[in-house]
Amino acid sequence: MVTLVTGGTGFVGINIVEALLARGDEVIAFGQAPLPEGAHRAFAKYGSKLHVVLGDVRDDAALDHLFTQYRVERLVHGAVITAGVERETRDPDSIIDVNVRGTVRVVQSAHKHGVGRMVYVSSGSAYGESLFTEQRLYEDVTPARPATLYQITKHAAERTAVRLRAVWGLDLVCVRLGSVIGPWERDTGVRDTLSPHFQLARLAAAGQNARLPAREGRKDQVYSRDVAAGIVALLDAPALRYTLYNLSSGRSDDWHGTLADWCGHLRKVYPGFEFRTVSAGEPHDIFAADKVDRAPMDISRIVQDAGFTPAFGPAAAYADMVDWLRQQA
Amino acid sequence: MVTLVTGGTGFVGINIVEALLARGDEVIAFGQAPLPEGAHRAFAKYGSKLHVVLGDVRDDAALDHLFTQYRVERLVHGAVITAGVERETRDPDSIIDVNVRGTVRVVQSAHKHGVGRMVYVSSGSAYGESLFTEQRLYEDVTPARPATLYQITKHAAERTAVRLRAVWGLDLVCVRLGSVIGPWERDTGVRDTLSPHFQLARLAAAGQNARLPAREGRKDQVYSRDVAAGIVALLDAPALRYTLYNLSSGRSDDWHGTLADWCGHLRKVYPGFEFRTVSAGEPHDIFAADKVDRAPMDISRIVQDAGFTPAFGPAAAYADMVDWLRQQA
Repeated sequence: MVTLVTGGTGFVGINIVEALLARGDEVIAFGQAPLPEGAHRAFAKYGSKLHVVLGDVRDDAALDHLFTQYRVERLVHGAVITAGVERETRDPDSIIDVNVRGTVRVVQSAHKHGVGRMVYVSSGSAYGESLFTEQRLYEDVTPARPATLYQITKHAAERTAVRLRAVWGLDLVCVRLGSVIGPWERDTGVRDTLSPHFQLARLAAAGQNARLPAREGRKDQVYSRDVAAGIVALLDAPALRYTLYNLSSGRSDDWHGTLADWCGHLRKVYPGFEFRTVSAGEPHDIFAADKVDRAPMDISRIVQDAGFTPAFGPAAAYADMVDWLRQQA
Repeated sequence: MVTLVTGGTGFVGINIVEALLARGDEVIAFGQAPLPEGAHRAFAKYGSKLHVVLGDVRDDAALDHLFTQYRVERLVHGAVITAGVERETRDPDSIIDVNVRGTVRVVQSAHKHGVGRMVYVSSGSAYGESLFTEQRLYEDVTPARPATLYQITKHAAERTAVRLRAVWGLDLVCVRLGSVIGPWERDTGVRDTLSPHFQLARLAAAGQNARLPAREGRKDQVYSRDVAAGIVALLDAPALRYTLYNLSSGRSDDWHGTLADWCGHLRKVYPGFEFRTVSAGEPHDIFAADKVDRAPMDISRIVQDAGFTPAFGPAAAYADMVDWLRQQA
């Protein structure tokens, strides 16, 4: 099975590539940045099963060449600019061009070349303001109220993909991810909001200490290996009843308030790392660990339809991330 | 006051241009197609107050030239592809490029050149499926469930405009229009869904007869001169409390089932025109007059904030359209 993963050299993309390689797929990782050194090392054992192709989803010729060169059978479209407010202010056009038009172009090329199952990697962000006003988020039921350009473009690209499925008769589903943490997260220049866990690991690696916020916002955390497993399950499921699936850990309470626990794990790799939790009002070092509480997504659909079971709560995830960090050192 | 109207040579655009000229504004009508002959004649009396500039909202250089050449003080952004399913199937990329990216480019250029009040002409279509499932549509309350590319792009462009307002500090509002009928509607090649009224007038003008559907879908009809008046009111209102306003006639019941009445009016201009209403199941000649019922939009906001009062119900509108048709003959 030959699977194309766009955004395949980015954080979530590499996790998907890794899961596909591990089960024997041939994978084309299409992305703007090269694979990190650690991924090259880790994937060397798969030899010619992995093709890394550098390119931009806005480049029609590159896409066409890609589909002509490889007999792509399945597609995971994850290429995206995870834009923060600074980028929204400076360059809104590129956010729309990559996130929305890029999706049309990739899906259109895939359709033209007879690709089978396609998965569009959307985001819980597509729920927009409902993330913060609803108790629990259900696909196609909870209204989407996108407000930022990231939210707007993820929502628009996802709806566009569903519409193209209808008018072109595609075998395509969309999946909305929770807040992903885990291996292969790095700063590629297009991910403006890095996870608190990554920020802490970066501080520790740099020999710096960390002040943790007095209060952690509630997030719908999910481990990147579970994200990859869920997407592979969607690629494989013989019959999917819906066009949209939430994908998260289904246990957001377990993750809440575990940043200090994560710091404790980091000390196993970086014994000199010091951290403390500040008092309310004191400055801290971790952005995006703020006071905003995000509702969890209901994952019954993907559990039922794709037979997906999340394997990682915080304990398993933090242990695995420590192993991964050691391998990268 | 110098006002730029993008899509200014299209159906709704010409109505806005006409209303602005009538009250003494200098107007730049920017559009892809030239003004129709009848509009040239009708606007000749305004002399150099009207500038028609042909161009594409995707053309950055053309936009830049426009804002450099004219001291634009206010903007109405109406340029759009009103896409039907055939165009969605054939060319989804252009729909997104014009409707969403075009909006970013126009608003960005306007911002760069210090334009004041901006009005983005959105559509009731931004409510998407809620048009058909809700009883009444309220701004920022009724969830948007866009499904077609036209709905998706109008929604995304509107949300993008509101976001750019926030990050750039713009004086910008969006307005969602009902189903517009009235003067200056014509087939420009980018409006895939022509109104039933236009279709009937076209048949009558061509010396053909018409079979009317047994049942008319409920629409939230609004006369194009009221649309223009509402948008001018939004340009002028000293203080607007919201970022989004519905704009329709506020009397959708009055319009329902009046197609035969409109045909009667058409006979005043085209005495040989014959029409009949078919029985249920019989074929008819008028597409988009179908069985789907669309909920009306609540217009309290624009009435209260902009002092807008719709002037046209069907009787006044049909009489005015007959006058207009006579002038065009």
